[in-house]
Amino acid sequence: AMAVPAMAASHALPELNWRLATSVPPTIEFYEGAVTFAEEVERMTDGKFKIRVFAGGELVPAFGVFDAVSDGTVEMGHTASYYYFGKNEAYALDTTVPFGMNYRQFQAWWNYGNGKTLIQDLFAKANIVPFPAGNTGVQMGGWFNKEVKSVADLDGLKMRIGGMGGKIIQKLGVVPQSVPGADIYPSLEKGTIDAAEWIGPHDDMKLGFNQVASYYYTPGWWEAGPNLSVYINKEKFDALPVEYQAIVEAAATRANVDMMSSYDAKNPVALKKLISTGTKLRAFPRDVLEAAYAAAQETYAELRESNPDFKLIYDDMVKFQKDQNLWAGVAEGRQDAFMQSISR
Amino acid sequence: AMAVPAMAASHALPELNWRLATSVPPTIEFYEGAVTFAEEVERMTDGKFKIRVFAGGELVPAFGVFDAVSDGTVEMGHTASYYYFGKNEAYALDTTVPFGMNYRQFQAWWNYGNGKTLIQDLFAKANIVPFPAGNTGVQMGGWFNKEVKSVADLDGLKMRIGGMGGKIIQKLGVVPQSVPGADIYPSLEKGTIDAAEWIGPHDDMKLGFNQVASYYYTPGWWEAGPNLSVYINKEKFDALPVEYQAIVEAAATRANVDMMSSYDAKNPVALKKLISTGTKLRAFPRDVLEAAYAAAQETYAELRESNPDFKLIYDDMVKFQKDQNLWAGVAEGRQDAFMQSISR
Repeated sequence: AMAVPAMAASHALPELNWRLATSVPPTIEFYEGAVTFAEEVERMTDGKFKIRVFAGGELVPAFGVFDAVSDGTVEMGHTASYYYFGKNEAYALDTTVPFGMNYRQFQAWWNYGNGKTLIQDLFAKANIVPFPAGNTGVQMGGWFNKEVKSVADLDGLKMRIGGMGGKIIQKLGVVPQSVPGADIYPSLEKGTIDAAEWIGPHDDMKLGFNQVASYYYTPGWWEAGPNLSVYINKEKFDALPVEYQAIVEAAATRANVDMMSSYDAKNPVALKKLISTGTKLRAFPRDVLEAAYAAAQETYAELRESNPDFKLIYDDMVKFQKDQNLWAGVAEGRQDAFMQSISR
Repeated sequence: AMAVPAMAASHALPELNWRLATSVPPTIEFYEGAVTFAEEVERMTDGKFKIRVFAGGELVPAFGVFDAVSDGTVEMGHTASYYYFGKNEAYALDTTVPFGMNYRQFQAWWNYGNGKTLIQDLFAKANIVPFPAGNTGVQMGGWFNKEVKSVADLDGLKMRIGGMGGKIIQKLGVVPQSVPGADIYPSLEKGTIDAAEWIGPHDDMKLGFNQVASYYYTPGWWEAGPNLSVYINKEKFDALPVEYQAIVEAAATRANVDMMSSYDAKNPVALKKLISTGTKLRAFPRDVLEAAYAAAQETYAELRESNPDFKLIYDDMVKFQKDQNLWAGVAEGRQDAFMQSISR
């Protein structure tokens, strides 16, 4: 005895045409996160809520997404909050910081820790509602033209690396270089730089870095699961019907899972091709990781002093992360390690 | 210049009241996956599409969810497909098999491998549309009243373990016992059984197994990321408006991520409490894992011979999994291992 379906007498849902600005060109895999998000919203509303996605620079500057959403120039954005580190270092905690949480840990912190509340409260001050909407997973440590056998080998190395990773690796002797994605290949080729980090096997191979550098290092400890965010102008979000608010959040979750799956499916295919065509896979030696970790702790101590927003959110995150690492090493880590060892 | 919102002239969405049968009591954490799913659908439709969740046995028998959804007794279910292994061994591949994929790998296979197509095609024959809607992550290897130092220590051990894990561990000398969740504690206490596996720290501590067994083993290689599924009666799903179809799928994704986050947040808290109150955490020795892995391969070889559905899906899964394990060991695994070692 099912209830007989009745037509709803309640409000019809509005037709909306919104614009979403991204920070990247469509050639970078994580542009797809924005596309997936928009498609999911459209699908869940049968086309009533349409979102047009614009590539980085098309509508607003690539790193102008934050301001454009904040002031309502566009209704939505898809970007990485750590691009806006210069405005407030705490924004980086919505993406990742060196030795930060991995993909799953970030979701756990967002959904069952204080992550969602802390991050959304911070962004509310800028009139933005952020939701997780994509992740690359742990990135690679980048391309090097010579082997790194200890911290000493980093001394004077000119490396294309930005953000907090750059600030921290500088303490190990690296000279960080600011080089746009499109200029990395020629800079490595000409020897203007000795090393460059980008994303992971799939995106890196597209840009051909394997043709101009021999050694591919792991892991990218400065990007241990960077979270991409959907931004919605807060006034516009608050004015949406409740159905649309829930649909926007769910579409972000769909995009988040989808992007992680996409990278997971594509990265090993690219990695195998890289290795079979001569790329030499190397792991950063333990002393490099330890020195970088120590340098990162110094930086966090400084930021906790100078920035109360950073202190509030970072302290909460680190406490949560510590428990996550304990648990990850017990069941998940042991099973994964066994599977990696046996299925070679 | 925003487009002016217009009221949609198109169809109003129907009011629906559906029923969802689960296989578990509300005391088991993964019952919450069904609740989250129902709440998300309701939220995205502002209450027009209501789903009432029933505990295991309340409406149909706990393991009658498959049949009830298949024949339309209920519109929806939330269950684990490996419970229906007896109908068709291939159903287990929608949940997990021993040494199967972890949470993230399963999502990647579902979204960017052939997982979704293969599994949904299989279930279509039974008039069911399944979506991933929850995961426990890698489970623990269970509670033992003595140490397991090698395969020899398993000989004659009476262990509460079901499903394919039971069939496989039997080849190592264990005598699998079928014991309902509620009877595990008294059975361990009386010594009727020597060991029992259940889920992980959070659920296990609730049932007090730490009071009647000293050794807690890891990892639960027979459950390396079991996927819980939402089932929808296929005729009823196909008759839904396209918005509701998309919303149902997105709500399942929300439940999937939410359950994983919930377990990740709660398990380390419980684990610390267990260890601080005397539980001895132990890892299965390598020879046990290797013998179990070899026994599992035998079982898969038999199933590939006897069951074409199993062969089709298993072969695809294993091929995908092999690439995933390769990649997981390169960036993710190295970063995770370092973090686990440094944040102790």
